[in-house]
Amino acid sequence: MTTLSNLPTYRTPIHDEWIDFNAHLRDAYYGLIFSYATDDLMDQLGMDAAYRARTQNTLYSLELHIHYLREVKRSDELTVTAGIIAADRKRIHAAFSMTCPRLGEPAATAEFMLLHVHQGAEPKGVPFPDDIRAKVETLRSLTGAHPSLGAASRKIELR
Amino acid sequence: MTTLSNLPTYRTPIHDEWIDFNAHLRDAYYGLIFSYATDDLMDQLGMDAAYRARTQNTLYSLELHIHYLREVKRSDELTVTAGIIAADRKRIHAAFSMTCPRLGEPAATAEFMLLHVHQGAEPKGVPFPDDIRAKVETLRSLTGAHPSLGAASRKIELR
Repeated sequence: MTTLSNLPTYRTPIHDEWIDFNAHLRDAYYGLIFSYATDDLMDQLGMDAAYRARTQNTLYSLELHIHYLREVKRSDELTVTAGIIAADRKRIHAAFSMTCPRLGEPAATAEFMLLHVHQGAEPKGVPFPDDIRAKVETLRSLTGAHPSLGAASRKIELR
Repeated sequence: MTTLSNLPTYRTPIHDEWIDFNAHLRDAYYGLIFSYATDDLMDQLGMDAAYRARTQNTLYSLELHIHYLREVKRSDELTVTAGIIAADRKRIHAAFSMTCPRLGEPAATAEFMLLHVHQGAEPKGVPFPDDIRAKVETLRSLTGAHPSLGAASRKIELR
């Protein structure tokens, strides 16, 4: 597996209540882990709690696509690597790959479309400030060297 | 909005811990609600706990795509309507629409690709028994009359 050095990582153990009747990580908790990894990515891009409190700006999720590739078990310790596939003035198309030492390939991959929103009387999409845009662009350029972030989003259909 | 009569529904209130720092339902908990709605759909298609215990067969999620269309708040009560877009011998392509009385349009839509799996020494995709296949086909034919289940899965990209 390609080393995903230089990309942000988020680590988490598995909690008992995340295991379902199939004796593996419930699909929705892959999503919760990717959601926490997105919070972590926000911090790293400068959109942390202080920024959110000061500006009333934050990120909203518009779309999510997860590929479930391998079963995750209670004893696994997971690492999520984050990248940015593309971005514009207001949006980030982020990619995540979930791995654990037991598996030789990703357990899951995810893509989010995220919108920078000002939470006023009505939430409204607004451009990133220049300093955050620069951090987004830096990570996007790093991610370009790591095409192995995983199975890409696509229309879901029987093939 | 088109009435989604005759399709299975799953209802849930919102829990405090599902609300995030944006003061709305965290993206991952839309996913948890859709996951519980999938459990409910399994029951309705005959793949309930008794079936799973007797056969060691269950459903695994292969892919998930969520469109987040509206913010959901702590006070909302949600209804998820389930349908089946397509199916083959081993797979169900399921669609879900999440609504609440406060909103005139869906708060979110989701699609899952689900695989019928026998949990032996190694999990293995296996065909549905005839009685379950018949229930799947009945729901698929009902769903065909309800194209409004919502925003369809697609490749995620900046447009």
